[in-house]
Amino acid sequence: MTTRRSFIRQMSVSALSLSVLPSIAWAFPDAPVLRVAIMGLGSYGTRVAEAMRACTRARLVGVISGTPTKVRVWQERYGIPAKNCYDYGNYDQIKNNRDIDAVYVITPNALHHDAVIRVAKAGKHVICEKPMAVNARQGQEMVDACKAAGVQLLVGYRMHFEPHTLEVIRMRKEGAFGPIRFFQGLSGFIIGDPTQWRLNPALSGGGAMMDIGIYSINGSRYMTGEEPVWVTAQETKTDPVKFIKGIDETIQFQLGFPSGAVASCLSTYNANNLDRFFLDGAQGFAELLPATGYGPIQGRTHLGELQAPIVTHQTVQMDEMAQILLEGKQPVVPVDGREAVKDLTIIDAIYKAARTGQRVDLQA
Amino acid sequence: MTTRRSFIRQMSVSALSLSVLPSIAWAFPDAPVLRVAIMGLGSYGTRVAEAMRACTRARLVGVISGTPTKVRVWQERYGIPAKNCYDYGNYDQIKNNRDIDAVYVITPNALHHDAVIRVAKAGKHVICEKPMAVNARQGQEMVDACKAAGVQLLVGYRMHFEPHTLEVIRMRKEGAFGPIRFFQGLSGFIIGDPTQWRLNPALSGGGAMMDIGIYSINGSRYMTGEEPVWVTAQETKTDPVKFIKGIDETIQFQLGFPSGAVASCLSTYNANNLDRFFLDGAQGFAELLPATGYGPIQGRTHLGELQAPIVTHQTVQMDEMAQILLEGKQPVVPVDGREAVKDLTIIDAIYKAARTGQRVDLQA
Repeated sequence: MTTRRSFIRQMSVSALSLSVLPSIAWAFPDAPVLRVAIMGLGSYGTRVAEAMRACTRARLVGVISGTPTKVRVWQERYGIPAKNCYDYGNYDQIKNNRDIDAVYVITPNALHHDAVIRVAKAGKHVICEKPMAVNARQGQEMVDACKAAGVQLLVGYRMHFEPHTLEVIRMRKEGAFGPIRFFQGLSGFIIGDPTQWRLNPALSGGGAMMDIGIYSINGSRYMTGEEPVWVTAQETKTDPVKFIKGIDETIQFQLGFPSGAVASCLSTYNANNLDRFFLDGAQGFAELLPATGYGPIQGRTHLGELQAPIVTHQTVQMDEMAQILLEGKQPVVPVDGREAVKDLTIIDAIYKAARTGQRVDLQA
Repeated sequence: MTTRRSFIRQMSVSALSLSVLPSIAWAFPDAPVLRVAIMGLGSYGTRVAEAMRACTRARLVGVISGTPTKVRVWQERYGIPAKNCYDYGNYDQIKNNRDIDAVYVITPNALHHDAVIRVAKAGKHVICEKPMAVNARQGQEMVDACKAAGVQLLVGYRMHFEPHTLEVIRMRKEGAFGPIRFFQGLSGFIIGDPTQWRLNPALSGGGAMMDIGIYSINGSRYMTGEEPVWVTAQETKTDPVKFIKGIDETIQFQLGFPSGAVASCLSTYNANNLDRFFLDGAQGFAELLPATGYGPIQGRTHLGELQAPIVTHQTVQMDEMAQILLEGKQPVVPVDGREAVKDLTIIDAIYKAARTGQRVDLQA
């Protein structure tokens, strides 16, 4: 049995000690810096904060938390002034804080919707961890609220900035694999502590699919470069005590794309560490293994090992997001709220397909 | 585009030049030898004949063919006397031939049913290439006919004797992977010549599923050690000219097992060389890559590279089948007609699930 944290540790090896890509800011020391407050000081929030130490375009300047003891630890560790510390009762006041540009929402999934809308109403850009919401309707409301408030909404799609991933996407666009025919995504691990919020549907909005299945969904889109037009899915539950109603343990799902390419994916909280993407075309293939873990991504194609820099994903993500928010930079693969709504629409369809046993058609 | 033959060549590297496992017959030079006639002198029949040169327990002694020029070439190449040569009109006479013990049927799939029953009625043991038939009803008739005739029916499941495969099965039985949770089988290549019999439903009985999808079906059973209780499937056809009605191009299928383990498989005539088995348990994994090609099988587990002898599959198969037929030896994984009916039952269910979009339940 593995706790999520120990799984992450296994996957991350010594990522934080590895060199970070030289940032554009080295060349432009006066480039503007995105000043970020993190909402939710759990293990992933801590990982982002640590990674941001190496950022040149983004800086952690504030926190929003319901736990005063955590706030004090973070203040000391990251030099955060008291005036930039909020709790869940008063954080609408952030609208009067001119020293904070954006809030990164890293709370349990089911709390994202309300938090993102409140931050938007406070006039700050929002970065939201994925899944952005627990269904597409919520997601669209968040997109609409941010648009109405005139703020930008980005989602923590760290793989969209990962160099091995981007190299495969570049090769696919150049036709190195020929027409794409098949994608496989495997996303799974054996989850530990049964009391964690991820196994509480009121907080997680779902099980393995919300937590890690989303990587295979999102990956199937950026690896193939297509949007699915149909979905089928099969759910299996072997432990209904640990995985209560509303928490999916294992779901296999299949996607069909307009070109005729198909995807076959697995999302599970009940199998050995699974984190593999495989893209197969008529003239070649790419494998990413591991494909999405926090540590070094590795991969190969029919031409050999992928050569790409090892980066700390969250460092690169935050530097890139700073440039998106401050300068309108366009990422290779979108990371905005509409991108997240596409994933959530597919998640809705997968749950429906698993429940009904019927194929669910999607708009291309 | 790849012809089946060039695909096979790619997969086989120099298998025929590699050393063959020392056979038990070395120790017992007087052990009885199975005297075999091959029916169908096409490319696979030729491969079997060549491999049998290295057999110590089986010997090629006869042929059944509709092409006299081929018969003459084989007679010369393998030293086959004229009295052991038959055509499709007269091969029932083989019942009077005391120098032939068994017939290996290597004709197009749809012809297996009638041929096997005729051979059985002639009182000879039958080895039939896979798929043994084009549906389970045919398969059961063949099993029944052989039983009624008092002859044995074996099926060309060469992987059931392959050392890397057997090593994974041994490890799984010993619990090396923990409880099995997931199997993936990928079976596919881009088929060439559109005029070949494999693309003619009257001869093949189906498309990629009959030809190579069956490897993933059979593999899901011997790798997990369980029989599936449900099947779902999704068919995709991108080229209805090359893949006419009755010839499946691409089918994804999923299997559920009594333990809660699931399998996710791909059968295709339209993707880059795919030949991979992946078995995942709670405590470890095994990968066979390539898993079923004619050449050297390679594999690894969570413990490292699999160490197992490289063999010519058809040589080992025929030596082992000789011992099964002549001495009642029990193989680790069954290779008899009932084993084939299990695969054909699953193929029937996959076709039904693909056609109806509904899950098909199977008896465990």
